[in-house]
Parts: sequence; C-alpha cells; structure tokens
Amino acid sequence: MGKYLVLQTDFGLGDGAVSAMYGVAHMVSDEVVVEDLTHDIPPYDIWVASYRLLQTVKYWPKGTVFVSVVDPGVGSDRRSIVCETESGHYILTPDNGSLTHIRHYQGIREVRAIDEVVSRLPHSEESHTFHGRDIYAYNGARLASGEINFSELGDVVSQDSLTYLDLIDAKEENGILTGSIDVLDIRFGSLWSNIPLALFKQAGIAHGDSIQVTIFHQGKKVYQNIMMFAKSFADVNIGEPLVYVNSLVNVGVAVNQDSFSRLYHIGTGTAWTIQLRKAPKVIFE
Amino acid sequence: MGKYLVLQTDFGLGDGAVSAMYGVAHMVSDEVVVEDLTHDIPPYDIWVASYRLLQTVKYWPKGTVFVSVVDPGVGSDRRSIVCETESGHYILTPDNGSLTHIRHYQGIREVRAIDEVVSRLPHSEESHTFHGRDIYAYNGARLASGEINFSELGDVVSQDSLTYLDLIDAKEENGILTGSIDVLDIRFGSLWSNIPLALFKQAGIAHGDSIQVTIFHQGKKVYQNIMMFAKSFADVNIGEPLVYVNSLVNVGVAVNQDSFSRLYHIGTGTAWTIQLRKAPKVIFE
Amino acid sequence: MGKYLVLQTDFGLGDGAVSAMYGVAHMVSDEVVVEDLTHDIPPYDIWVASYRLLQTVKYWPKGTVFVSVVDPGVGSDRRSIVCETESGHYILTPDNGSLTHIRHYQGIREVRAIDEVVSRLPHSEESHTFHGRDIYAYNGARLASGEINFSELGDVVSQDSLTYLDLIDAKEENGILTGSIDVLDIRFGSLWSNIPLALFKQAGIAHGDSIQVTIFHQGKKVYQNIMMFAKSFADVNIGEPLVYVNSLVNVGVAVNQDSFSRLYHIGTGTAWTIQLRKAPKVIFE
Repeated sequence: MGKYLVLQTDFGLGDGAVSAMYGVAHMVSDEVVVEDLTHDIPPYDIWVASYRLLQTVKYWPKGTVFVSVVDPGVGSDRRSIVCETESGHYILTPDNGSLTHIRHYQGIREVRAIDEVVSRLPHSEESHTFHGRDIYAYNGARLASGEINFSELGDVVSQDSLTYLDLIDAKEENGILTGSIDVLDIRFGSLWSNIPLALFKQAGIAHGDSIQVTIFHQGKKVYQNIMMFAKSFADVNIGEPLVYVNSLVNVGVAVNQDSFSRLYHIGTGTAWTIQLRKAPKVIFE
Repeated sequence: MGKYLVLQTDFGLGDGAVSAMYGVAHMVSDEVVVEDLTHDIPPYDIWVASYRLLQTVKYWPKGTVFVSVVDPGVGSDRRSIVCETESGHYILTPDNGSLTHIRHYQGIREVRAIDEVVSRLPHSEESHTFHGRDIYAYNGARLASGEINFSELGDVVSQDSLTYLDLIDAKEENGILTGSIDVLDIRFGSLWSNIPLALFKQAGIAHGDSIQVTIFHQGKKVYQNIMMFAKSFADVNIGEPLVYVNSLVNVGVAVNQDSFSRLYHIGTGTAWTIQLRKAPKVIFE
Repeated sequence: MGKYLVLQTDFGLGDGAVSAMYGVAHMVSDEVVVEDLTHDIPPYDIWVASYRLLQTVKYWPKGTVFVSVVDPGVGSDRRSIVCETESGHYILTPDNGSLTHIRHYQGIREVRAIDEVVSRLPHSEESHTFHGRDIYAYNGARLASGEINFSELGDVVSQDSLTYLDLIDAKEENGILTGSIDVLDIRFGSLWSNIPLALFKQAGIAHGDSIQVTIFHQGKKVYQNIMMFAKSFADVNIGEPLVYVNSLVNVGVAVNQDSFSRLYHIGTGTAWTIQLRKAPKVIFE
C-alpha cells in the first residue's frame, strides 16, 4: 500500500521552506511518497485552505496523510491537531478552522491534539515559527510511514472543541436555490457555489434550461442575468456566461474562455451569496 | 522499469485540481511515479502545449506516459485520444491539435480513440468539466501501471483524422534561412525558432560569424539587427543580443541577461517569422 | 537508503526545462527520487541560490545530492564542480559563488571539478546552453543512484580556488549586534539577518525585551524603530513589527500579517546591514 504524505501551505514555492518539509519527511522514512496539494493558498486564508481539502482529499487513496499549514497563530497557544476523516484519510493542521468544510460535508471520525513538546523534530526547540517543518511534516511522515499510529499522536479531543469558520447551507424553496460562493477556480475565474446538483434536480432544472442567476454581496444585489444550464463550456459561445456542474458536482457559474470573477468583480466567501431559479418565460412585446 | 506518468495542463498549481489528478493516479496504482511537465501553459493555448511536448517527451524514459490537458472543448464531442510516438512514449490528450509538433518533428506510430463512457473514473459521470482527472489521469495511470495496455484504451483511428495546427517549415535558400518563432524561453525571454542547426551548417554559418536577424509579424518587418552567432551567452556583453543554439539544437535569439521578447515586443506562433543570413560585410564610408 | 536528487534553478516551472531535467535523471536510474528545492531563484541571482542551499540542505537525509543551476556563465570556461559538505551531502553547481554560504556556515569536505566533455548526457554535444539538463541533472542522478561515486566525477580542486561572494560576519560589541540582511522570507516579507540567537543570548537579550532595530543601506540609515523580541508573530498585534527567531535560529524582523520588506522598502544582500540593541528606557517628559 502506498504511503502518501500530501502537503498544503501558504508558503509558496519561492524559497526553501517547502523543500525543508520534504526533506524532514524523507529523513523520517524513505518509504513515504511526498506530494503537494497546493502551496499557493493566499497568505493566512484559512477559508480557502479548508475548501481545498474538501476539493481534494477524497481523490487520494484511503490512509493518505494530509498536512495543511495556514497558520497565522504559529507559536501561540493554538493547538496542533490531527483528525481521521469519515473517508479514511488523516489531516494534521493547526486548530484554526482548516477542518470546517471537511467536517461539515464529509465528516470526521476522531480528533486528537498533538503534543508540540514531545512530538517535534529533534533539536528544533529554539524555532517557534516553522511548525510546518518541525511539527506537521515531521509527524505527518511518522504517521504516513507507520512509525507511529494515529492514537500515538496525542489524546482524543471533542470535535465540538475545535475552531470552525461560519458556513451557509445551500437550500431550495419554491424552486429558488440559494447558497454561498465558496471559492474561485483560480486559473479560469469560474465561481463555485455550494449548491449541489441534487438540489437542481429537486427543483426540476435540467441541462438546456435557462437560469436566472442573481449574486449578492453582504445582502446587496450586485449581478443578475439569465444564462443556460450547459453541460460543458463549449455549449455556449466564447465570452458567454453559463451555469454548469463543477468537478465536485456542485453548481458553478462561468464565462466560456474568460473570467466571470474578474469581468463582474465577484469574490468568494460567505459574504457572497447566489440565487438561481429557472428563468421565467421572457416575453418581448 | 520505472512507471512514469507525466502531467501537463493549463490549470496552474493554485488550487486542488492537479493534486486531485495525482491522487486519482495513485488510487489506480501505488507503483506509478507521477511528475509534471508544466501546469503553466497559458489558458487554452494548444500551440504552446504542443510545443512543450516536443521539448520534453524524448528526455524521458521510453514507455513514459504523458497526459496533456489544454482543453477548451472539454465536455463537447471533441475526441479523447492516446498515441504511441515513434520514440516509444505515450500521450493522452484531447484531439485539438496538441500533437501537432510531435507528429511533424518526431513522428507518431499509432493513435487510438478513448471511449469516454467506458474508460473513466468510476462514479464521475455527473461531472463533465474535469476530464483531466476523470479521463486522462485515470487512464494515463492505468496505462503507465500496466493495468491495461495501449490497445485496450480504444480503437485505432487514422492519424490524418486528427486535428492539427498550422506549421511553417524552416528552409534555406541561397544562404538565407527562414522559419517561425515557435516559443518563448519564458524565464529568460529568449526566442526559439524552428530552424535547426543543420540548416546553419548547410548555409556555411559557423560560431563567431556575424548574422543579420530580421523578424516579421504577419509579413511586416518589425526588427532587424546584426549580432554574433555565439557558442554561449557569455560570449557577448551583458545586454547585447546574440544568435545561439538552444537545448533542442535549434537556433534561438536572445539578449545576455535580459529579455529579447520584452525589449523588442516580439511574440511567438506562426504569425511571427524570422530570417537569418550571414551578415554582409558592413562598410562605413 | 533513499536515493534523493534535489534540484534548484532559476528556470521557473513555466516551460519544459525542469521536466527535461527530471526525465534525464529518471533515464539514468529508476531508483532515484527527484524533488525540488525551488526553481524560482530570481534569474542570475547567485547570492539567493547560495542562501537557499544553506536554508535547506541539512534538512535532507545524508547522502542526498543537490543540483543548483543559476548559471549566467553557462557554456563559458567557468568550471562545473561537485562538493561533499561537512554534513554529508553533495552539491553539483557551476563554480560561480553558489557554495558561499554552505562553505562559510556549514563547511565543505572536498571539491572536485567535473569534466564537461566526458561526463555529459550522451548526444548532447551540440547544445551549450542547458548544462542543467546535460551536465548537472545527468551527473547528479549518476551520483545519487550509485552508478558512480564522488571521486569518479573528477579531480580534486582546492576550496580556495573556488569563486565566492562577499559575506559580512555578524558580531556583538558592547551589547550592540550587527549583521547583514541576507534574504527575504518571500511570501511573508520578513527579513532574515545572519545574527544567530546565540549572540542575542550573549548580549543578555531575552524574549519580551524591547529591541531597537536600525537598518542601513550602503551605510546610510533607512529605518529605525523599537519593537518586541517576540516568541511568535501572534505575540504582537496584526500590523505591528517584531523581532523573532527564524527557522534557521537566526534573528529576523517582521510585521505580523504584513510585509516588512514592502512596507519599509528594505532589500537584501550585503549592502543591507542591521543593528540591534536592547532598547534604552524610553522616557516621555
């Protein structure tokens, strides 16, 4: 069975930080295969880190160990934790909200608090600002390699004791779907909502239908248009907007070969909400 | 023998997309070693994707499987294909022109059409916009691991039935060499032509000669200068232009420690052509 | 034992150059695990390349082979060298100063000159501008895989014959500490000095003390302020400056959740010096 350690940080790849994490993992064991989720989480953006875990974890083999370090409180008394997810993966991370999406949408079996004094890279005691290397990569590699097991990383803590960010649940009422715009498909500028395809089906919306899309920022309407619920981007013209099902089987809005986010200045997070409904028949008199 | 799967996309590394491709490949087999060509192909730029394959494939062990996903038509009826190259490598890609350079300069043995319904990541049927994960990484890993062989991926299709981009052949006439400026050495701003060193030799041009370089955009002259055919950048002063032999043994033009492309606003693609000749004796009266 | 080859360049990841280096290494041996230090060294910046080796090498298993290619003189008569460090690692690099920090702070056991004619990728003789692929990745993989040993790479040359960049030693005099600002923590904008924590202790400075920080550019004072010597960033308010111990157990200056470098226009290198002293009692009359 593969022994995978997958790293996510907001460190970027421009200096030696991520490489030192790789090296420490390989010093723990030469059987661990180290890979990346991403290192381009916007600095300090715990929300995005939490979302990227949701997006990625379940596509890796069961038993894969994830390390997620977006950690503005490094060296403070915030806890270091490790969880086993319902899907059978492990995540080591500071207790600052990084598990918000995974817990809500996929579920967590058990959480343990890592003892940062006992379980740390030997001789790293003088450094208090690089737990990514000294705590997370080190312990992640020990867990991935089988040198220690999950329960040896620390004592169980209750899931309710963890820090979580606020989430808004998607809902359907009288054929109107509402949800939040959770995250950006960075390279292509598409917006990913938290509205699952299942709610579309519940509302009787099918591919080819016209959809009225309304976007709100802090409750204020900032965008409204009617567009097709397309199966693929190529179903509409270049430059035309569309509603589509993204790779997590949630509803997204995009512009074919352009950036919806940039064109209409739409951001992400719970302050940005979206409403979709089958378009009323448009009558031109 | 190594079981290598090498990924190229225009997805960037900023979100979880490439990591999900890695995870799917590792779920198929824990013996596959997954590496990157690049994920920074400019969005939708099939030409550059095609060129990067030419630049890289032959430097990997025979049997290496490449996946190249620059796919503006994802989810449409464009085909998914897999080819075996004359050099003994495999490439899975949408049929949209990504094999243009490899076929022309290195040759293809056989092409097969991948059945996107049968050969896809189980339970991915609802998503039509991430074939990089659901079709290409999944099938690429199956091929690289030996779970299936080339012929099991689909039926043979003729090479002529594929989509290709236009190419301009380099030529030598009366000591004048012409070709296209195919691509940029991104970080250093050098321009890579499709003129092979062999044509230089045919024209009797040797290291140390002065060369007149003329660049045209859509047939209109936009740059002309005389510079040395240098063996290395260090043969000319910092800031001075030169003609040199690049890592594919084609002719390039560069400025030592600066960007030729940026300084003179020169782009790439078949609209940009270049002409080189041994410099006439320059007489100052 | 793991067979690790770790690559550092200023090539970026946008084209196929780094991937070709990976491919060549895997062609040499399918047992070599290839990883990255970084490929985002600023173009031609040997100083930063030298520093990133210092930052990273010792966190990898002994025997790991590093390749560092920031090489403005590629193809000229500058030598290609390989060293064994006191820490038991190997580094292949052009002889242009890239070993400056490693030699000064960690020590080198022996250096050998690589014969670029004999020891190069077969059939690469016509290319003089990509030694990263043809000389360094190729020979690095041969060394990492055990195909050849260190002494087979070339003859011993004296350490004093190598090219080095200028360094300034950190010192403590009468409680005043001075040093250089060696490098930037790129993503977070913190400045890393070469003043070790040991000198702080020698000067009787402890966590919680107020420190006067003065920064000079080419001897001219450009910044002065009093800030806390904090254990972690979270000990000060967001937007507040601090002195802290970085991951190499040297002293750094930072702004909590902002960029010190950008806010105060402070750069790095030996032209930038820093002076720290326990803050005099501040009396407001």
